[in-house]
Order: sequence, then structure tokens, then C-alpha cells
Amino acid sequence: MPDGFELFTDRSVVAMRVNGELKDLATQVTDADTVEAVTIDSEDGLNILRHSAAHVLAQAVQKVNPDARLGIGPPVTDGFYYDFDVHEAFTPEDLKALQKEMDRIIRQGQRFVRRVVSEEEAREELASEPYKLELIGIKGSHAGEDNESVEVGGAELTIYDNVDPKSGETLWKDLCRGPHLPSTRMIGNGYALTRVAAAYWRGSEKNPQLQRIYGTAWPTKDELRAYQARMEEAAKRDHRKLGRELDLFSFPDEIGSGLAVFHPKGGIIRAEIENYMRERLVASGYDLVNTPHITKGHLFETSQHLSWYKDGMFPAMHLDAEYNEAGEVTRQGQDYYLKPMNCPMHNLIYRARGRSYRELPMRLAEFGTVYRYEKSGTLSGLTRVRGLTQDDAHIYVTPGQVKEELARQLQFVLETLRGYGLNDFYLELSTKDPVKYVGTDEVWEEATETLRQVAVESGLELVADPGGAAFYGPKISVQARDAIGRTWQLSTVQLDFNQPELFELEYTADDGSRQQPVMIHRALLGSIERFFAILLEHYAGAFPVWLSPVQVVGIPVAEQYGDYLQDVIDQLKKAGVRAEVDHSDDRMQKKIRNHTKAKVPFQLIAGEEDSANGSVSFRFRDGTQLNGIPVADAIQRITQSIADRVQVDTAWPA
Amino acid sequence: MPDGFELFTDRSVVAMRVNGELKDLATQVTDADTVEAVTIDSEDGLNILRHSAAHVLAQAVQKVNPDARLGIGPPVTDGFYYDFDVHEAFTPEDLKALQKEMDRIIRQGQRFVRRVVSEEEAREELASEPYKLELIGIKGSHAGEDNESVEVGGAELTIYDNVDPKSGETLWKDLCRGPHLPSTRMIGNGYALTRVAAAYWRGSEKNPQLQRIYGTAWPTKDELRAYQARMEEAAKRDHRKLGRELDLFSFPDEIGSGLAVFHPKGGIIRAEIENYMRERLVASGYDLVNTPHITKGHLFETSQHLSWYKDGMFPAMHLDAEYNEAGEVTRQGQDYYLKPMNCPMHNLIYRARGRSYRELPMRLAEFGTVYRYEKSGTLSGLTRVRGLTQDDAHIYVTPGQVKEELARQLQFVLETLRGYGLNDFYLELSTKDPVKYVGTDEVWEEATETLRQVAVESGLELVADPGGAAFYGPKISVQARDAIGRTWQLSTVQLDFNQPELFELEYTADDGSRQQPVMIHRALLGSIERFFAILLEHYAGAFPVWLSPVQVVGIPVAEQYGDYLQDVIDQLKKAGVRAEVDHSDDRMQKKIRNHTKAKVPFQLIAGEEDSANGSVSFRFRDGTQLNGIPVADAIQRITQSIADRVQVDTAWPA
Repeated sequence: MPDGFELFTDRSVVAMRVNGELKDLATQVTDADTVEAVTIDSEDGLNILRHSAAHVLAQAVQKVNPDARLGIGPPVTDGFYYDFDVHEAFTPEDLKALQKEMDRIIRQGQRFVRRVVSEEEAREELASEPYKLELIGIKGSHAGEDNESVEVGGAELTIYDNVDPKSGETLWKDLCRGPHLPSTRMIGNGYALTRVAAAYWRGSEKNPQLQRIYGTAWPTKDELRAYQARMEEAAKRDHRKLGRELDLFSFPDEIGSGLAVFHPKGGIIRAEIENYMRERLVASGYDLVNTPHITKGHLFETSQHLSWYKDGMFPAMHLDAEYNEAGEVTRQGQDYYLKPMNCPMHNLIYRARGRSYRELPMRLAEFGTVYRYEKSGTLSGLTRVRGLTQDDAHIYVTPGQVKEELARQLQFVLETLRGYGLNDFYLELSTKDPVKYVGTDEVWEEATETLRQVAVESGLELVADPGGAAFYGPKISVQARDAIGRTWQLSTVQLDFNQPELFELEYTADDGSRQQPVMIHRALLGSIERFFAILLEHYAGAFPVWLSPVQVVGIPVAEQYGDYLQDVIDQLKKAGVRAEVDHSDDRMQKKIRNHTKAKVPFQLIAGEEDSANGSVSFRFRDGTQLNGIPVADAIQRITQSIADRVQVDTAWPA
Repeated sequence: MPDGFELFTDRSVVAMRVNGELKDLATQVTDADTVEAVTIDSEDGLNILRHSAAHVLAQAVQKVNPDARLGIGPPVTDGFYYDFDVHEAFTPEDLKALQKEMDRIIRQGQRFVRRVVSEEEAREELASEPYKLELIGIKGSHAGEDNESVEVGGAELTIYDNVDPKSGETLWKDLCRGPHLPSTRMIGNGYALTRVAAAYWRGSEKNPQLQRIYGTAWPTKDELRAYQARMEEAAKRDHRKLGRELDLFSFPDEIGSGLAVFHPKGGIIRAEIENYMRERLVASGYDLVNTPHITKGHLFETSQHLSWYKDGMFPAMHLDAEYNEAGEVTRQGQDYYLKPMNCPMHNLIYRARGRSYRELPMRLAEFGTVYRYEKSGTLSGLTRVRGLTQDDAHIYVTPGQVKEELARQLQFVLETLRGYGLNDFYLELSTKDPVKYVGTDEVWEEATETLRQVAVESGLELVADPGGAAFYGPKISVQARDAIGRTWQLSTVQLDFNQPELFELEYTADDGSRQQPVMIHRALLGSIERFFAILLEHYAGAFPVWLSPVQVVGIPVAEQYGDYLQDVIDQLKKAGVRAEVDHSDDRMQKKIRNHTKAKVPFQLIAGEEDSANGSVSFRFRDGTQLNGIPVADAIQRITQSIADRVQVDTAWPA
């Protein structure tokens, strides 16, 4: 029986799929098996490369610090990590030393050798690794969590030995399901250790805290460098950093984790995002509604959020209980909750009175701030917060209106996103989980087919997400690529067959019968906080003019031109432009540097010549200039660029 | 020594002030006493009339139902009440019977006779009245609450006997400080019993529930009728009733008391109120900020809300505590609260970084939804709620900027209110409580004088509210009169010498020194919910065009003109007008009735002639019509009336 080394001579092949299952190249196969090559640059190949790098990292750590006990070490997006129980946290210097040791192991060309073991053998061999022993125990009982499955997934228990190619001696070993590269040498020099973090064993705060080392690994040094350049670019655009530098928002300690306050410059961007959205909503046949942030718990029992989602909700506030002088309860109180979703309240508005088919589609929209209890360790800037404002809409339609409304929604979503300057999209269609779903197969099939047609008609790339739908209905989501090629899930258009049932929603059809409407959940921006972060990173803070907190700043060449410029700026302000003159004592060049750093789209400069001619000179974000533009012309160009929602970074063509 | 009957022959005199104290007319006075007449139409006189009517009511109740035990019976605004411990609640029929009995007592002309008693005598005489006995006990210990002081206020304990003018026999008595009318006859026929309510003894939920009867009383039948007419008009305008009829908002049981949801038609009005406000704020140099609805309790400790205002806050939510497997706390959690005020969060934005005098005035504005725990019994429609959105602004200025900024704020407030169609204002100046205040007398005097000057310069009537200021600074408030002459406190401009201290707010002055800014709290609408209610009652639902949920409805004379009208309506919609065609099966007259009832400002009607001529016919809210207006002209008039924010109830002049 041949193995993979014989079957594949191409050196970029690092593993195989045998009858669909990932296997080491050393696995022997027969003619009856279906065998596919896994190259290092495929998704599977990259995972194997990174997983092998994680083993090399762990070996290096135990070489440098034999007391380190091993946690788990899986591949992750773009890299890998390994967790260690050590007395002291790792330092950046430690990482350098570890990387040297890893280089040595890689050059040594150790072979990865798979070995099936009994539970007893595994316990004996790994007696000094308490965390591994715990995983062996889990293997004995249940399947373990996602990340642990790199160790104990599959039917057999396996250990991978790292073997010296010369002596044949086993230098290191790890409990692992594999597969791995044939040799450490194939890791090459396209890897790097990146950072250190603390992490609880098996993700639970009740367990010991371990030290985690993250790394990245790529097939070549060039690919590593390209990745590092992307990371640097992303770091420059990090919305948390830009938020500070541009004074847009903060997370005051006094208020609490994951609760943002928007400063004046962030507040006006947020208001512009909302104003544009509101304008579009009203023009597109939505009704704006308004609901409280708290409610009696019973509402979320009806919606089943309290059964399914309680961990993600803030704890209850108990109200309105009454007591007599003896302290006995004379009237039962109520548990009130902060809302984690707006839908149940919109359902109450729908059923506030009888509805006729003539009123449908009824599109209820709200900027609804919801509160979700996320563990403090998982919070991240504006993209993962505890308080978020959803641009939420719920649309109630007759079954006959579903298709037209879905098409309309998708079009609305894409047009609106384009208004914010996002243009590069693809769609994802999430379909039924074969086990968890409500409603009949026919309804699902029809709805899914409708969504597919609507998606196809949009002309956008459509990616399948089989089984990815929530139990209550299929969904289209819009994925947007930003300026540096990252994708973000933005809008979702989601059918719901469940809530109309739970809330007993009805309408009177044209034949007088009572019917149940179909409900569509539509979030366009997702949350305003997250969308704010995405726009901020997409534009690296250099927003289109209409979103810029300061749109125009006037810079007099010398103090005596301040009044002239102030007059121009006052005209702009009257026209609704956010404009101001920098009358500070700084010198002109310093002012230009400051406002360029603040990413103001238009700097208007005026000195002797411009004030004599009734003109101004433009300086743009990229440093280009346009001199001697008559004031009326300048105002017209500026207001036009705001009305057109364009981004202006460089001088207009003459 | 003469008594009041000898001193005053004017029959409208019902009591006297002797050396400033209210006394019965029967009181004997000396030459050394300063004596003033109290006429029945004065504030004091009305209170005495109403208090005497309350006694007559109580006598009537005990005549009809001798088992009824007496609570208290004070005068209140426009009337009086009396509380009774009875086995069954009163019915409207009971009120009729009671009023008959009261008429009899009044016609009988019983005299009110004051008698000083010892505590022991009082206990003996009122042995069958347990609530009165409790009040006698209170008199022995402390002063009692406001309403109880009608019974047991003053230095002596007194009983008022109702004496038969013929026999001299005492027919009924009550523990009471008085004074009273000389005779029940003077109550006349200007009174009425109005309604029944339940009320806890001494206002505490821990005490027994009593049955309260309310009445109103006036010097003449005409005044009673005028009052009843005002009440009817107010009832017609009641925002709770109009809110239901016009489908604007509701308070779903499922959400909880005092928590409103705004339906589509209310939501668009609310959005228009906010849009206009936002527009004005941005044009007037405000910064829009945004802050969460919850915060760690510590913030409200710093602001002292948790010491002074805890009862008005929702209970805490405890977050982020961590436990080990034994259930022991391994990390302390935090109490989070719903915010009852926005100011502390705005202070955090102010101090997010160092501030320079160049940045002041800094005007932070937010539509901040706050939650306040009001007892469910005190909630009332949109005017007293648990969740309310304040149009809150906090302005930070240097001491030298205070006056100009106050003048600017007052002007801003009045101009903006006029934009909503309110025009009839007076101002109230609340000055220092002589005991409770922070800061020096000089600072208060200067600030109060500044407020007074600013108020006087506005040219509006200025009413003093001595001692009415909060402890942290003086205040101007704007009182607005609505369409039926009621006054509402709307905007407040309030100086605050306290929070800048508590939050250690600073700015760098032009000489480089660190200085403390002055803080101005400015609420313009008060809360959007309450302002919504006031506008709704002011306009009785017939809003100015820009605030009307549906601005135009098209009514075809017959079905075949539907398409023609739809085209006109589509042009209006394109121009941003909220317009729709009534294509229902109803007959034209029915449609006109429906949309008149819904208070739509413009009904556009078209039949043969209009569709042939390219015109439409207007029907206005008052039923007036304007026929044959060319479509372009009609659109121009409609859009203009929206842009001008005018109310249009009747046909324009030709």
C-alpha cells in the first residue's frame, strides 16, 4: 500500500484527504480510497502548517522552561496559539528567545509521527501534564469544545511524537488528533510569534489562568511580510486608536466596560449616520416608532428570549413590590429587564389594534438601544460592546408579499450602504439547520428559494451558508469588503416564522379571514457603534465630507487676514457647513500640520492676494492645493461635495 | 370687642386675617389688632369655601351611612375631597344621593362653631373615629403632614360643631383647625361632587385603603359652570384620549407602567419634534453627544444622586462578580444603575481631556432617555412617566461668559418654542433658599441679578419664586400658556455651582491658570414625552402641517379618479410630503368624515372637472373648501405650509 509521499511528488503537498478525512502524508492508502492532495496554501494546508508550528512553539517553551505545563494549541485565523501554565507571564524578550529555539527545531527537521494509544497508555505517558490528563478524561466522556478537538477529536486517542531524523529518538510529544506536516523543516521561515495574552483554562473564569502565546505562520517569508504589512495597516486604522486620536469617543471607567460615550466630534458623525438613515427610511415607506429600554420580564418570556438568551441579558430589577410594617409582601413585584432585542416591542405595536391586509407591508423602524451582557474579557472597542444601538426594522407582510418585499429590502440595504461609501459586497445565504427549526419543510424551501432568487437577481456573488440559519427562518446577509480588503458582515434580512406565532399576530385578509403575517427582521448597519467603527477603519479617519466632524477650517496666512477668512467661514456656516477659523497663536505651518492630522477635508488659506481678490486657496488632505478660488465658487464646491456625499482627499481637476 | 360680622358688612367677606392669621368671622378683635377682610373669591376665601363644603360632604356621608369613619378632608386646587373608611366603594348613584343630602344641609343654614378642646376631651368626643384619634396622637407628637394640618395644625386643638340655627343643637362635628364659613348656606349652589378614588390613609401603602370623594366648589353657579366647561374642554383635549383616538402611542401592560411606546403616527411626530430641535441645536453652536443609559453606581455617588435621589432611581443590577466552584466570590461585582439624569455623563465628556478657555462655551446636547422610579399610583399619561427622553444640554462657561450665555440660552429657548407654535410665555425666577445652598452669597447674588437682567431684557412678564431654587444654583423657568389658558412649566435654564466642584472640572485660562467653569443645565422641552402631551393638548390633535402624521390625503369623488389623484399624491410624496390616497371602498362622504376626524390638514378631492383641468380641490379641517387649484400650485402651497411650520385649519384667503 502506497503512502502520500509516493502518491504526491509536489513538495507543496503537506497532507491528504482520504475519503474526505484529513490524514498525514505518511498514511497508507489503497486503490479503493479516494485521495486528494492538500497543498500548504489551501485552507486545510494552512491550518496544518499553523498547528505544527504550535507544537514547535510548545516544544521550545518546555525546552527553555521545563516546568511549563501544556494547555491546548490549535490553529486560528492567520495563525496559532498555545496555552501554558507557567509561574510568570511571558515577556517580549522571552518571545525572541523562543523564536530562536523554534528556528533550531525547524532546521533540525524533526519528523511528526502519529501513534495510536490506549487511554491508559496516554495517561502514563502524559502523567506530568495535568491539563492533558483532563482532556483524556473528557475524551472518555463527551466530545469536548471546538478548540480541544485538535487534541481529542476523532475516534481514536493519538499522540504525535517529534522524532530526531538522525537518531530516531523522540524529542517531544503531544496529545493530538493531527494531521501534521511531515517535518518541522516545512514550517520554514514564514512564521513569527506575535503576542502574549492571559486565558482561562477551557475558557471558564472558574478555572486557572494560563499564559497564551500567539503566532502567525505562512508558507513563505514573503507571505508573512505581506500579512505583517496588512496588520500594520489595520493597526494604523484601528478604530480604538483613531477614536482617541481624533477625539471621537471613549469608554470611561466611571461608566463601565463596553459602554461608550460619544464626544462632540464622534457625536456629530453618529448623528449624520442616523440622519441619513432616517431620511432614507421615511422616503422608503418605513414608520418610525419608539419603545422603552426596559420591560417586564413577561414580554421576554413570550418571545422566549428569557429561555434561550438569559445569559446574554443584564440581571433583573425588581420593582413595585409592597410591604406592610412587618416587612411582609402585600403586593407582588415584577422583574424588569433591559431589552436585548427590540422585536418583541415592535410586535406589541403591531398588535396594538386589529390590522387589515391594506396596512401591509407594515415596516416598523427604530434606532433601538439594547443592552447585552457580554463577559468583560470579550469586549473590544466599538465592535463588541454591552450597549448598542440597532438600526432595527421589523416588517410584517402577507405571504404573497414576501418575495417583492425581500427584493425591495435587499435593494434598500445595498443602496443605503453605497450612500455611506461602501461598494464591494457579496451575499451569504444561510439555510436550514437540518435538526433545529420551526415550521414546515415546504415553507422553508419556498422561503429559501425566494431568498436565493432575490440574491441572484441582485447580481452579487452569493455564498452558501448551509445549516447556518437561526431556527426561526432563513437569512441573507450582506458582507462588505473594506478599503484594505477585510470583510465585515453588515446587513441582515431574516425571515421569522416563529414570533408571529408566539405573539399571535394577525391581520384580516381581503376575504375577511384572519391570517398570520410573515415577519422580516432587517438590520442594515447592524449596530450604529459597530458600523461607526467599520466606517472609521474603512476611511482610516479621513471621512467623506458629509461625515467629517469639521468640514472646513480657515487658516489665515497671518493674523491680519483672520477677519477676511472669518467672513468666508461665516458664510459657510450659514449654509450649514461645519466650519471654523483657526485663530490660535500657532504659526501657519503648524496649523496646517494640526488640521491635516485631524483629517479635515478642506483647509481654506487666505493671505494678501486672496483677500484682495475675494478668493481663497484650498489645501486638501493629500497636501495638494488649488489657489485663488473665488469665494462664491468655493462655497458652491464645498456644499456640493457635502450634498453628493463624496470623499475628497485631493484637489479637484481644474 | 367687635367680631368680624360687625366689622365687615360686605356679604362676600367670609373670614378675616387677624395679625396675618386666618380666623373665623366670629372671632373677637381689639383695636390693637390688624384686621383684613377675606372675601369668598380670594384664594383664601375659596379654600375656606371648599373646606366647609368638605365638612358638609362628610356630614352627608355619615347621615346616609352612619358606619362610615372619617379620614381627612382638605381643600385642594379648584375643590376639595374627603376620605372615608366604608365597606363598599361609592358609586356615581351614591354621589347623587349625597349631593341631595348636602343641598339639604346647606339650605338648613347650619352654623360652623369653633371650640377649643383638651386632648382628653377630643379623645372622648371622637372616640368612635379611629383615624381622628390617630391625628390627635400626632398633634401630641409632631406637626403632621400638609393635608393633615387642616385638622391638627396650629397651637390649640379645636373642634368645629355644625349647629342647627333654629334649635341650637349640634348636628355634626369634626376635629379641625378651621376657619370656616359662618354658615353652610354660604356654600350656595356653586358646588358639585365630581369623582371617587381610592387612597391610602396618610398616603402610605402600608396603611388601610380609604374611599375618597372629590368635589369642586365656587362662589356662584356661573363660576361652577365655567369651571365645568373648562374641564370638558380639557377632557376633550386629554392627551391620553387623543393618543388613543389618533393611534399615537400606548402603554402596553406587557411592558409596564409609565413606559410608553410610540406607534407609527406618534413616532413620526416625535421624530419631527426631535429633527427640528436637532437642526436648531447644530445651527446654534451645540455639540451633539451620546451616552449610555446605564452606569456603575460610583458615578452617581460622585454626583451625589445616590445620596439624595436614590428613591427616585430604579434598583441596581449587580454585574461582573466571579465565583469559584465552591460558590465563593473571587472577584467583586459592581452595581449598575439606569441613569435618572444625564449631567454626570456629560461631565465625563467635559473632562475626557484638558480644556482651554478657547473651547468655552462648550455646549453638550443629547436626547438622553432617563429612567425614574415613580410610584405607579402617581403615573399619568405622558406627563408623568418612568421612562422619559430629556432634551438635555449642559453648557460649560467661564465666569465672564455667564451673562452673555444666559441671554443667548433664553433667546434660543423662546425662539425654539415659538417654532413649535407656542407664543404666550412668562418667566419665573427661582432664587436662593435661605438655608439650603452651596457657594457664597456674593456668587448667588451676582448670578441671580444676572438672571434677573436677562429675564427683564426678554421683555416677558417676570414672576418671583423666592426660595424656590435648588441648593446648587438659581434658575429661570419658562411658563407657557396653552390654547385653553393653562400654564405649563417648560424650559429651564439653571446655574450649577456644585457639580463643577464635585467633578473637579477645570479649564486653562488665558493666563495659564487652572480655573473652574460654571455649568448651566438647560432643558428646553423638558422631556419629549411631556412636551408631546402638551402639544397634543394645545392643538387638540390638530397639529401644524409639519407635525401632522398624515399631511395630505387624496379622496377621489369616484373610483375612476383614483389614478389621477394617485399621481398628484406621488408628486407630493416625492417632494417629501406625507401623503396617501384613500382607495378604500368607503363612499366619499364617509372618507371625508374619517379624515376630518383624524385631523388631516389637507384633503385633496378630485372628480371629473379637476381631473380634466389638472387641478384639485382642497378641503380643510374646518370644512371650508377651495376648488380647482392647479396641481403645481397646490403642491407649492402644501410644501410651503410645511416649510413655514404653520397650522392650517381653514381655507387660505383667495
